[in-house]
Amino acid sequence: MIIAVDAAGGDHYPKNPILGALEAIKEFDNLTILLVGPEKLVQSELSQHYYEQSRIQILDAPEVVDMTDSASSALKQKPNSSIAKGIALHKQGHCHGFVSAGNTGVLLAASMFILGKLEGISRPTIATYYPSLEGFRLIIDAGANLEIKPEMALQFALMGQVYAKEIMGIEQPRVGLLNVGEEEGKGTELLNEIYVMLQQIPSFIGNVEGRDILVPKADIYITDGFMGNVVLKLGESLPGILKTLVWQKIKQTSSTPEMLRFVQQIFSEALAPFDYERVGGLPFLGVNGTSVVGHGGSSPTAIKNMIKVAIDCVEHSINDKIIASII
Amino acid sequence: MIIAVDAAGGDHYPKNPILGALEAIKEFDNLTILLVGPEKLVQSELSQHYYEQSRIQILDAPEVVDMTDSASSALKQKPNSSIAKGIALHKQGHCHGFVSAGNTGVLLAASMFILGKLEGISRPTIATYYPSLEGFRLIIDAGANLEIKPEMALQFALMGQVYAKEIMGIEQPRVGLLNVGEEEGKGTELLNEIYVMLQQIPSFIGNVEGRDILVPKADIYITDGFMGNVVLKLGESLPGILKTLVWQKIKQTSSTPEMLRFVQQIFSEALAPFDYERVGGLPFLGVNGTSVVGHGGSSPTAIKNMIKVAIDCVEHSINDKIIASII
Repeated sequence: MIIAVDAAGGDHYPKNPILGALEAIKEFDNLTILLVGPEKLVQSELSQHYYEQSRIQILDAPEVVDMTDSASSALKQKPNSSIAKGIALHKQGHCHGFVSAGNTGVLLAASMFILGKLEGISRPTIATYYPSLEGFRLIIDAGANLEIKPEMALQFALMGQVYAKEIMGIEQPRVGLLNVGEEEGKGTELLNEIYVMLQQIPSFIGNVEGRDILVPKADIYITDGFMGNVVLKLGESLPGILKTLVWQKIKQTSSTPEMLRFVQQIFSEALAPFDYERVGGLPFLGVNGTSVVGHGGSSPTAIKNMIKVAIDCVEHSINDKIIASII
Repeated sequence: MIIAVDAAGGDHYPKNPILGALEAIKEFDNLTILLVGPEKLVQSELSQHYYEQSRIQILDAPEVVDMTDSASSALKQKPNSSIAKGIALHKQGHCHGFVSAGNTGVLLAASMFILGKLEGISRPTIATYYPSLEGFRLIIDAGANLEIKPEMALQFALMGQVYAKEIMGIEQPRVGLLNVGEEEGKGTELLNEIYVMLQQIPSFIGNVEGRDILVPKADIYITDGFMGNVVLKLGESLPGILKTLVWQKIKQTSSTPEMLRFVQQIFSEALAPFDYERVGGLPFLGVNGTSVVGHGGSSPTAIKNMIKVAIDCVEHSINDKIIASII
């Protein structure tokens, strides 16, 4: 298996992508990594580590896409970026997948335009993991499609079911439509049309509300990318906010060092379900290839886990199964 | 000051509305309460308590609006409900405001149709308090208008500013537009049109993201009622979910009773900002009267705090100030 890694993506490049790649080759057998990025920069970081040299190669991509670059212009203005070259490499069959903690919009655009859409898919989507009392569940769409249509919602749900079943090990993933109330007929005309469309799915459980997400009442929450993005970022902000609130209280309380350690341990373990590092990232669903995107702040372990996601998607033939699932 | 209280609203009527009313007359001078609900039921609960009898009156409203009744039919089918009669009482000038923990949709419909809209307001709205590191802030709209237009968004922001200034004591409330990115131009065409409209407000700080809400980066977050409702209910579910996560960890850990008490104390105090009971409820903004709605599960203290909100709105002449603020 050959996975290409964006060595110029994310807030901590080239260090974190390279450290993540090194973790990955230690953990996964038969894996070769192509590091795509400015050659000298990558070489300089890589030379500081010991590793099995035959398993890591560098592909020069001198241009760097910034996190603020717009999807519409970055591909034209920076044709030699790590994203453009990495996805092209994948298109040409030189690797099985591409992994990036870089600019999501640019990666999505590159994946759609260079790799193309899977047969029968009207719009590719990006899902996000969301924490719950029973582990991560999926919210689709997480920002790729700010407005959605009923046909798109149905395809999102079907693609999400393939992913949840194959990669997350959820046998019959329940699909819920995020809405303002549980009863059929709640919400806008569009939400009602989506509801009717989703009824084609046997494990569609109907409307779900904001309070159901963390329970979790469904395994896949269908919504538009505006909602998905805001809810995702709100969730990501929670651990930091809660730690601050707890810390403020601790400072006001007299306690022994032993008690403080206990509180800190309980809290950090209780908040572990909110730790996005464990999953790293998710592939775009519906593109003709394996293109995994992760958080800009990804740690080396998060990058390693993104590489794992790419490997899993290839080994489980996710795309073939998505094509077969489309009604 | 005379405030009418829906004695047949919420999940725990008539008990909680009545206990809340009794708390209120103890705490606030010169306050008379009209309890609106099925007379015998209300009388039976009320007779179990000692109170200053001249300060609480009962108005019979034999029909009860259920939490699942639709706004469109409940007013026609149940003309003698506590909501219909309470709002009519207010319209006729027999009380200064009406407070209910009952069906939000029916109360909004009654408030709009019976009280009418304030001069110059295109659509009344409902705001929600949202917790943050610096106390509660406002999200508008919280579910009254699932789809919004730029003119509506501007009026929501102006009404929210009057409320935040007068009732929450925030001197120059910052207005943010909830979006998928910070830069101008992010989001849908509609979000861009709203952005341009909101630029008329001097303290408009631009787009804000999901991660900014709990910080808080703004004092008033403008969004549509679909987003507001989902984010509100997600926030309401958080304390329970976090308590479960902490409890699960504690059970797996060996600890002394003293340590357990310490963790529980720190935790419940740290989560206090998420406690909606402290605020009780919010008035509909833009209706020609004072109509305060609270959570169905409102405790007596939450009901008392809703009565306080109604008193504050009247004393601060919120509606006159809203009319004066509209551009």
